[in-house]
Amino acid sequence: MNIAILGFGTVGKGVYEIVKKANGKTESLHVDHILIRKNKECILPEMTDSIDDILNDKDLDVVVEAIGGIEPAHEYILSALKHKKHVITANKAVIALYLKEFTEAARDNGVKFYFEASVGGGIPWIQGLEKALRIDQVNSIEGIFNGTSNFILDQMSKRGQSFSEVLKEAQKLGYAEADPSADIDGIDVANKLSISADIAYNIDIADQDKMPIFGIRNISASDIDYFAKKGMSIKLIGKTHQRENKFDYIVEPTLFQSHTLEANTPDNYNLISLNGDTIGKLDFFGQGAGMLPTANAVVQDILDIKEAKDHLVRDFDSKVEYCSNLTKSDYLVRSSYDVSDIFSDYKVYHEGDFLRVEQISAGKMHDLMKEVLSFDSKAFMASLPMEVVA
Amino acid sequence: MNIAILGFGTVGKGVYEIVKKANGKTESLHVDHILIRKNKECILPEMTDSIDDILNDKDLDVVVEAIGGIEPAHEYILSALKHKKHVITANKAVIALYLKEFTEAARDNGVKFYFEASVGGGIPWIQGLEKALRIDQVNSIEGIFNGTSNFILDQMSKRGQSFSEVLKEAQKLGYAEADPSADIDGIDVANKLSISADIAYNIDIADQDKMPIFGIRNISASDIDYFAKKGMSIKLIGKTHQRENKFDYIVEPTLFQSHTLEANTPDNYNLISLNGDTIGKLDFFGQGAGMLPTANAVVQDILDIKEAKDHLVRDFDSKVEYCSNLTKSDYLVRSSYDVSDIFSDYKVYHEGDFLRVEQISAGKMHDLMKEVLSFDSKAFMASLPMEVVA
Repeated sequence: MNIAILGFGTVGKGVYEIVKKANGKTESLHVDHILIRKNKECILPEMTDSIDDILNDKDLDVVVEAIGGIEPAHEYILSALKHKKHVITANKAVIALYLKEFTEAARDNGVKFYFEASVGGGIPWIQGLEKALRIDQVNSIEGIFNGTSNFILDQMSKRGQSFSEVLKEAQKLGYAEADPSADIDGIDVANKLSISADIAYNIDIADQDKMPIFGIRNISASDIDYFAKKGMSIKLIGKTHQRENKFDYIVEPTLFQSHTLEANTPDNYNLISLNGDTIGKLDFFGQGAGMLPTANAVVQDILDIKEAKDHLVRDFDSKVEYCSNLTKSDYLVRSSYDVSDIFSDYKVYHEGDFLRVEQISAGKMHDLMKEVLSFDSKAFMASLPMEVVA
Repeated sequence: MNIAILGFGTVGKGVYEIVKKANGKTESLHVDHILIRKNKECILPEMTDSIDDILNDKDLDVVVEAIGGIEPAHEYILSALKHKKHVITANKAVIALYLKEFTEAARDNGVKFYFEASVGGGIPWIQGLEKALRIDQVNSIEGIFNGTSNFILDQMSKRGQSFSEVLKEAQKLGYAEADPSADIDGIDVANKLSISADIAYNIDIADQDKMPIFGIRNISASDIDYFAKKGMSIKLIGKTHQRENKFDYIVEPTLFQSHTLEANTPDNYNLISLNGDTIGKLDFFGQGAGMLPTANAVVQDILDIKEAKDHLVRDFDSKVEYCSNLTKSDYLVRSSYDVSDIFSDYKVYHEGDFLRVEQISAGKMHDLMKEVLSFDSKAFMASLPMEVVA
């Protein structure tokens, strides 16, 4: 297989390194081109700044998009598919927006569009989900999809430091970007959850406007301390449920009892689980990011193409509809003000520094939390585990 | 695909149920025959007591061996392969012994022999391991491979009950068999570990005589209590390591700190992890047994055959050799007698009711423990997590 890598950042370098590895396992793979930015120095013979030269190479089989962001990634992916090249990417932002367009372009041009690395990095999550769907309806997906936010929460809880202190350290270590908003505000999780829901329900979400998203920017050391005293850990969770042709999807800080796998997912690890009719609960744990694990997933997709191991075919034609009040939970709300008025339609009581709101749907809760934030921009909320109703 | 199910116990019934399910996902599958024992009543039209009638059915594609045990399972599997039928089984005991023979018979007859359900039940472990091996050398595998023993240890630790009390309850609930020795003495784990090592290292272990195996039969409520006070949980673990063409494999009670995934694997769940060069640590968690999860894995194998998704090809021809002292750990030994003499070549000291033996290889430790058991049949031992040596 002849490969072109677009972009030579973390993922691009990792793919190059794995393909070059001398262990004999990837000897059938060959990197022919690496696209770098205009005016950057070509430090490797494979490097070029011409996308056209790459796409017009008749011997090229696979394009690995590793530029990131929306444009020109979107344009290059489409263009490569139209040139009848298979495309593989780890770029969750562009997939969440354009999965349907890419899938159709791939189908129309007789090539593959694979994206295992986009969700859960090195974890074989997309494959695990697609495999489960061959037999089961998947009733729920829940996971720690973002390593950076998990690292921050884990460090805060281990060291008692503030959010801003830990964030600064994460940035110094390269675990968080200079603009960390995608990671800490739940955007990255929302993208990965969208992709997972698209696959699980055979739909095309694309527009995430309806998705209730709440990040961890406002969490304080004393919040974490309070949860710990209650025997709970907090995690930034993406979750989706399906019941009778309705689904929801939610990104929010969620509390877990200390004996759960979620509570014990450390550092920048990811943990993603699905629940199916016959398979029950299945959890995948591993490196959700990082150069080699992510690149491993990209190379796995290349090998699937080489070995003609076709992934699930989607037509996005399911009749499943979004429902903002499919599931209900208890929530803890922390604000410097008394906000109980806002939740007057619900049973509420004070619990430590928090207001506990009982059995409210995620859609409603996130709406009302926007009201809280409008006069207390530092307010925080977290959901409690859904109780199993008999 | 036309399917014959040999045996109608838990796994056989589960496969029948999933194939019959009306969700449209398995409509291309059809159960034509169910082999039952001679003189048993045929309660379903598919039932027969003639293996010959089944194997001579020219339209039959796949035989699911769900009898269990060594014979006649071994004979039927070989016979089916020679009749050019694909064979799928969850029977770890027969695979651990005859994997090479089955693999060669399948190859010679141009059919497949798949066994995803044999290790980890519903967990896609074999597939995950085979996939990792496309790119990485797998340096270690470690896991909770046996749900029954995990249920017993979990219940003992949650309720403070004795081993025999919990075992009796597990038998009443159907979690443990009337003769529980395969589960509690580590035989079942040894079979699953053998199969995993065969795949990981491309070898044929078959003869498990060398494998150090120690079960949980002798564990007491006060052992568990002591470990808990030290912040540790005990699990029955199968583990194997590979370094520079040498490997070891060990089944033994192992202590884990309370914040690890292993310590937090509850009930009868399994947790299996691998460690690879580029993928890092990857963990799979799910239902390691049970009717529908195990049957799900069997049906996944049928679908892989239908979709021509070939599994890893093995020739068992690797030069990797067994080494009994590849890894060292500290061990805790509990005996009513002073057994420090037996360990006089090692640094030992008393720790609660235990003798702690420092940095001893698994092979040596299990040998010396046999001496201890020869005059104290109730003695117990557990290994401590290997320390990471810089």
